[in-house]
Amino acid sequence: MNEPQLITSKDNPLLQRLRKLALDGAAYRRGGQVWIEGEHLCSALRTRGGAALQAVVADEAWVRPELRDLAAWAPRIARVPAALFKGFSTLESPAPIGFLIDAPAEVALRQGVASVVLDRVQDPGNVGSILRSAAAFGVPQVLALKGTVALWSPKVLRAGMGAHFGLHLVEGLAPEDLAALGAPLVATSSHAGHQLPSAHLPQPCAWVLGHEGQGVHADLLARCTLQVSIPQPGGEESLNVAAAAAVCLYESARRLPAQ
Amino acid sequence: MNEPQLITSKDNPLLQRLRKLALDGAAYRRGGQVWIEGEHLCSALRTRGGAALQAVVADEAWVRPELRDLAAWAPRIARVPAALFKGFSTLESPAPIGFLIDAPAEVALRQGVASVVLDRVQDPGNVGSILRSAAAFGVPQVLALKGTVALWSPKVLRAGMGAHFGLHLVEGLAPEDLAALGAPLVATSSHAGHQLPSAHLPQPCAWVLGHEGQGVHADLLARCTLQVSIPQPGGEESLNVAAAAAVCLYESARRLPAQ
Repeated sequence: MNEPQLITSKDNPLLQRLRKLALDGAAYRRGGQVWIEGEHLCSALRTRGGAALQAVVADEAWVRPELRDLAAWAPRIARVPAALFKGFSTLESPAPIGFLIDAPAEVALRQGVASVVLDRVQDPGNVGSILRSAAAFGVPQVLALKGTVALWSPKVLRAGMGAHFGLHLVEGLAPEDLAALGAPLVATSSHAGHQLPSAHLPQPCAWVLGHEGQGVHADLLARCTLQVSIPQPGGEESLNVAAAAAVCLYESARRLPAQ
Repeated sequence: MNEPQLITSKDNPLLQRLRKLALDGAAYRRGGQVWIEGEHLCSALRTRGGAALQAVVADEAWVRPELRDLAAWAPRIARVPAALFKGFSTLESPAPIGFLIDAPAEVALRQGVASVVLDRVQDPGNVGSILRSAAAFGVPQVLALKGTVALWSPKVLRAGMGAHFGLHLVEGLAPEDLAALGAPLVATSSHAGHQLPSAHLPQPCAWVLGHEGQGVHADLLARCTLQVSIPQPGGEESLNVAAAAAVCLYESARRLPAQ
């Protein structure tokens, strides 16, 4: 195993970098590195064949063999007293391990594959849940338009529970970039005439999910091939955007022929 | 309109009470009152035929006619400077209006109606989203077992977006209390043999949703008539509990004959 480095100064450059990443969810876009916390996320990265730059382990937890094993997967290991670990943890109860990884390179969108499009979705919990649903229902790509919460921020990572590592994620897109997708855009709308259970759904398609308060932008809605509504027999209530996403992706997956 | 009372001291008893309610999400269980914040929730309460004890309006917003109109619906109105309002707001950007309402009386569960059962679900955002889905899909009752987050806490109220006011909510139940429900319990399980799209679903039924990490408790699972799995062709990923709830309630509603 690589010899762990014990860090006891809060002024250590690594810890300074981690504090920046923990404080500002979009800092990875400038700093080029992402901070992922907790055994579940770190294990998911390893399982999915990702790569870590550095493991950071709470010194008090270093006795645990399974944490040592996980940390040893990274090329470098830092042991940090729990009191210092708190300074760059985004969790109420800090996890005893985290990995620093390279921020994902800017990638092009994949053409012709089932996708989810996020149009300025704001809440990290909602976005994390949507990524989990995409991964669960076999939608390989998620495209985030400008104004959507930073996908690799600590809160979205936590809510995503590892889904990030199995998806093709593209951020910072403009609506016109979606023309290159080559798959029809489908939006949900409470006013649409087509009801989800009976609507003809193109396969593959890209499900467009909008801002929590404002919904899908009119310009983007105009680019959609189809708008469907989710029947809500309870009345005028509306679904949370991540709940609506799960229903749409379930319905899409249900129609696919069994593999 | 009732003459509004201007409050300028943070030691005012009303403001002290509001601070307690804002700080401790379960304080309504002891104090007997619930604090609901924001125009959307306050309007939803009025629309649903609820009753407010007291309106609290940020003094700086008192010029807005629609806020005055909403406030005037309450028998008492307090005007509070925005600087003091922050002290009892649970929102990052405090809303300019809130209502104090009576905490819901302890009620018995309704027999034989479609329900959702929450088994120690922890995250306020998840529970709020589940309440919205229940209201949207026409499930009139939500039953929370002991250990579930307080349903009327500010965070759950916010995520519920008004769904609370249209649902029959019962808290603090033990698993054995569900025997009185008179509707079969259905749980989701990734190991279940019955697949949701093709499973025979009893109507009405009670969908059982479990703790985010631990799932449904084994004792409760043993009381379930049926376990179904949601097909997840993406692989070993799992859905967020509120996403799973939306899918199950959608599938249940889809099977009902059109009204």
